[in-house]
Amino acid sequence: MVQKYLFFNDYSEGAHPRILDALAKTNLVQELGYGEDSLCVEATHLIKTEIANPGADIHFVSGGTQANLTVLASLLRPYESIVAPITAHINIHEAGAIEATGHKIHGVPCADGKLTSESIREVVAQHTDEHMVKPKAVFISHATEVGTVYKKEELEAISKVCKELNLHLYLDGARLGSALVAADADLKLPEIAKLADVFYIGGTKNGALIGEAIVIINPSLKENFRYYIKQRGGLLAKGRILGAQFLELFKDGLFLELARHANMCAERLSRGIAECGYTFLAPSSTNQIFPILPNSVISKLKQSYGFYVWTKIDEKTSAIRLVTSWATSERAVDEFLADLKKISRPS
Amino acid sequence: MVQKYLFFNDYSEGAHPRILDALAKTNLVQELGYGEDSLCVEATHLIKTEIANPGADIHFVSGGTQANLTVLASLLRPYESIVAPITAHINIHEAGAIEATGHKIHGVPCADGKLTSESIREVVAQHTDEHMVKPKAVFISHATEVGTVYKKEELEAISKVCKELNLHLYLDGARLGSALVAADADLKLPEIAKLADVFYIGGTKNGALIGEAIVIINPSLKENFRYYIKQRGGLLAKGRILGAQFLELFKDGLFLELARHANMCAERLSRGIAECGYTFLAPSSTNQIFPILPNSVISKLKQSYGFYVWTKIDEKTSAIRLVTSWATSERAVDEFLADLKKISRPS
Amino acid sequence: MVQKYLFFNDYSEGAHPRILDALAKTNLVQELGYGEDSLCVEATHLIKTEIANPGADIHFVSGGTQANLTVLASLLRPYESIVAPITAHINIHEAGAIEATGHKIHGVPCADGKLTSESIREVVAQHTDEHMVKPKAVFISHATEVGTVYKKEELEAISKVCKELNLHLYLDGARLGSALVAADADLKLPEIAKLADVFYIGGTKNGALIGEAIVIINPSLKENFRYYIKQRGGLLAKGRILGAQFLELFKDGLFLELARHANMCAERLSRGIAECGYTFLAPSSTNQIFPILPNSVISKLKQSYGFYVWTKIDEKTSAIRLVTSWATSERAVDEFLADLKKISRPS
Amino acid sequence: MVQKYLFFNDYSEGAHPRILDALAKTNLVQELGYGEDSLCVEATHLIKTEIANPGADIHFVSGGTQANLTVLASLLRPYESIVAPITAHINIHEAGAIEATGHKIHGVPCADGKLTSESIREVVAQHTDEHMVKPKAVFISHATEVGTVYKKEELEAISKVCKELNLHLYLDGARLGSALVAADADLKLPEIAKLADVFYIGGTKNGALIGEAIVIINPSLKENFRYYIKQRGGLLAKGRILGAQFLELFKDGLFLELARHANMCAERLSRGIAECGYTFLAPSSTNQIFPILPNSVISKLKQSYGFYVWTKIDEKTSAIRLVTSWATSERAVDEFLADLKKISRPS
Repeated sequence: MVQKYLFFNDYSEGAHPRILDALAKTNLVQELGYGEDSLCVEATHLIKTEIANPGADIHFVSGGTQANLTVLASLLRPYESIVAPITAHINIHEAGAIEATGHKIHGVPCADGKLTSESIREVVAQHTDEHMVKPKAVFISHATEVGTVYKKEELEAISKVCKELNLHLYLDGARLGSALVAADADLKLPEIAKLADVFYIGGTKNGALIGEAIVIINPSLKENFRYYIKQRGGLLAKGRILGAQFLELFKDGLFLELARHANMCAERLSRGIAECGYTFLAPSSTNQIFPILPNSVISKLKQSYGFYVWTKIDEKTSAIRLVTSWATSERAVDEFLADLKKISRPS
Repeated sequence: MVQKYLFFNDYSEGAHPRILDALAKTNLVQELGYGEDSLCVEATHLIKTEIANPGADIHFVSGGTQANLTVLASLLRPYESIVAPITAHINIHEAGAIEATGHKIHGVPCADGKLTSESIREVVAQHTDEHMVKPKAVFISHATEVGTVYKKEELEAISKVCKELNLHLYLDGARLGSALVAADADLKLPEIAKLADVFYIGGTKNGALIGEAIVIINPSLKENFRYYIKQRGGLLAKGRILGAQFLELFKDGLFLELARHANMCAERLSRGIAECGYTFLAPSSTNQIFPILPNSVISKLKQSYGFYVWTKIDEKTSAIRLVTSWATSERAVDEFLADLKKISRPS
Repeated sequence: MVQKYLFFNDYSEGAHPRILDALAKTNLVQELGYGEDSLCVEATHLIKTEIANPGADIHFVSGGTQANLTVLASLLRPYESIVAPITAHINIHEAGAIEATGHKIHGVPCADGKLTSESIREVVAQHTDEHMVKPKAVFISHATEVGTVYKKEELEAISKVCKELNLHLYLDGARLGSALVAADADLKLPEIAKLADVFYIGGTKNGALIGEAIVIINPSLKENFRYYIKQRGGLLAKGRILGAQFLELFKDGLFLELARHANMCAERLSRGIAECGYTFLAPSSTNQIFPILPNSVISKLKQSYGFYVWTKIDEKTSAIRLVTSWATSERAVDEFLADLKKISRPS
Repeated sequence: MVQKYLFFNDYSEGAHPRILDALAKTNLVQELGYGEDSLCVEATHLIKTEIANPGADIHFVSGGTQANLTVLASLLRPYESIVAPITAHINIHEAGAIEATGHKIHGVPCADGKLTSESIREVVAQHTDEHMVKPKAVFISHATEVGTVYKKEELEAISKVCKELNLHLYLDGARLGSALVAADADLKLPEIAKLADVFYIGGTKNGALIGEAIVIINPSLKENFRYYIKQRGGLLAKGRILGAQFLELFKDGLFLELARHANMCAERLSRGIAECGYTFLAPSSTNQIFPILPNSVISKLKQSYGFYVWTKIDEKTSAIRLVTSWATSERAVDEFLADLKKISRPS
């Protein structure tokens, strides 16, 4: 059985061709190792401009779990803990990477993948003395695990409660590009850089071969961060390949352009699926959508397309996850919709 | 001051052009994530053939520290420790990555970067009860940190004592290519695969963009290894890029060919330096050499070349480290030697 | 304000006088250190007889958190996790001690402090691959944090599912004495020793000065356990004082006798409180009870008695925790009830 | 074979009778748990007076390894390391407890168990960047593992280099009593409290049943220390028993009185052994001595006395360790010396 198209995730292909070209063009120039090369330096400058924060520290690492475990290890003393949505990647899908650095995660129930300022306040209020851990970091994803995005006022409220309660706010931007250009987005990069203490800009899921750019805003969190990267195995000898890619992504807007394409494909998919009469698990405006389909329809779709069944809804229906990317062709989208229509049509 | 050439290390350039081509050629094919793609599968087969062990488990990760900390975390119970040369990369140059997984390293003094079976036996004999840690893994590098290689009978003796004392033998092969084709090498890959419990084949320092291939021989150490990779942040979403590279390196001998070039350049350097009357810190036969030079000569060389001063020998002389690679040009070598001759000549 | 009596916990006093006498009597005999003394040996024999398992391994440590973190560190590989009631002591009241050993706890919601075989099965079913942790240990308390006990058939069901799913079952017996002699108890020590892989018998909360006896039943979990104790700081130089106390507790039934007194006091309190018309948070049959009282009544009681307000029920009422012990006098109980009656009486 | 006397260590007996009396006298008074009782509060006041530092923080824990791992975990960020004598208890005899908290120990070779300011400076100088750990704490024992003590000027030099290099100085006082009253001692408690950032006063090896008093001098290291104690399993429910003991030890000089007796016995042993013509491993002035004896003499002594053979000197001789304590009788000392004389006499 050969499948027509894989909607499993946004890393089914290699890199955007311009990224590969950038690697090839700089390939034989001798550079210093470990991210001290001229490409990383230049990419760092571009990102600082993009976030409108010349004082930020930028560090490149190879992937999202690496970014999360390194940042969180750096933010916390041994007895401090992390408040996160119960669906958070660090809480479910990182094989206990954060606990392996010694820290507890408080998984806060939420329907839409988002924390609220109230939920943060509540967790902190419950932890009153040294018999319990002490919440100190707040972890959010933008876009979230279910494709939603934070509105500006939501993030402002979270940031405010973090400052009030002396918590560090860390934003996982594995799909930050998609979130920034979502139809309902009203949060720009410079605003995120004002509201979060640390965040990362995801490359892997937005056209890079590998790579995430960790951005440290809060000056008190900058010291000796490279030690953490090295100690956790994230300091690439050829750090240049991370610099070269981010340079290409940010030198003329490629980063957002790729995200726009991914979102456009997802929206087209959503519209078509809705037209077939189906509903969705959450109101995603980014490149992951979660339509709820009859199990019989899912089985038939699986013969031609690759995707994950996300969660059981009831005995007869489940939510599936469809992910689009910079590489998704509109033809694949249309073909999927046509097949869905055919399958769904009462015979 | 623009330098003529950098001998800092073997990762000053990107990848060998064939590696980049391989990435480009497979770039747009949709593949599964996390190393379950067809390229990793194929590369795995090639490596199993190369090591003559069809039952081995192969896992690809992005770098050497990542490989070391993941493997050692998997080998040990919390109270178990590692015997290693005092100069070992894990003991000095990984920012405490191994201790961060909870384990003590016994740094055994040695002149040539090599453990002996006797030194292992001695460390084990000193650890007699539960007030002390319990040595359980032996860590060696081949080639070593000072460019030397293990002879077959040395590795056999180490392997034997490990089996006798119920220790796991782990070989760090960051520069395994160079060691395999060293002039004084009598150890082949299939032999290493018989003598070690786990080892890794280094790609980063031998022509790859990034990537090391962890090879698990001992069946009792294979279980759930992917959990360790994921938990430590080493499971790349686009694992395909590791597969594609190792496929290229091993499909027709490129791996050893690149190492041969690096060693040839190093030997040419060594010969020329010796002809100037200088001696060496250790008898390296691989792509790192450590000539001992007057500090005044070092200062002048530094105006034109990049390299590290390795260690102070006495008030007037120091050992420097020169590293060659697949990308080193013979012209750079000859120019360096000509400059050295000029500088060294009594005026 | 001097309080008439403290119902804060079951460790407000020192040790039962017989325990102090036992320490005094053996005080000047020279013994080996670290639990290898004759008193520990003898206490070990007594406990093996009591649990009807001559092959068990017994180790003494100073407290409950020490016992829990040491045992769980020994049971798990780094990627493995623990299923526990959300109210579990390890999940809430040990300052992240378990996460500090690197392991995630799955806090399972439950009303009565108890896990069920179904809830365990469900957690395991959700963890399907190496992107997630792998549940491997089940943690239960008997008596639970809210004073309830497991019935024999409940523990049998849990033990069965653990065996089926290859999980280690660990029972925290901080208040095991009280659980064993609870009015609704149908579980005896030898049965627990058949159903659990590891458990501990709590001394601190049942008359000892300090001390818990860890009992390892499953032979595969016995190896090198003393290394874990030493590494975690739990190996007392004068281990003899733990041996002496458990010897006294188990030589003629003192352990259960003290628990019976504590339960009797709690039952008397419960009965009296119920007679005043109040209800309870959970149906405790052990030495912790959780009556729900109007906040105004609580305030007045606080002027004369020490106790914790456990949880808010609604705007006007809260559950408090009252704990009795071997040292609680019936007079204190009666005085408390008389005062409660007076306070509760409509004036 | 019944042995006449055990010189294995200074914890072969229980507690000094006055300690047991103190426990008995306060036994039935109701107190708060976890070290918040009136006895701990009072003991804390006494110790602050004794060290002439009213602002110090005092915390009681059950043993030395517990103290060391808790303090060092609190002092360090994950990438920071500890400089210690190679013979340090934390480096050899704590089963990797410190590495289990994630930190590397630099074991500095030394003949007499003591660090020097130069050796500290040297270790720091070797650690230059984020590829290596960053030395941040200095660990010393007073008395040392081989019975020697720091002279005032030595400790001043160490303290000075620590301040200069921004290192925390931690002094392990397991045998601090003995060190303070050593014949060659010129360091008083208030001076130690001025020179160290943190230290502990050992109770277990100087007459207490269990217990060490951690003293935090440096204000920046005080915050949230109780979280560390709880997380590492060191917060005793009946913390009162630690308070009661230190209260007794410090209320009228018992602490130093017991140490003086132990030292006197050791000195008497040393003198007698020297009179037999034997030499010593190190010039101990405290309650541990290390005479070098012929193996044949050792064998015969072992028939009547318990002690450890410390280290092999050559084929025919070894150093043994003899430890005296508050409980050692002069008669036992004299009997040992008489037997040694008999055994040593040429027949």
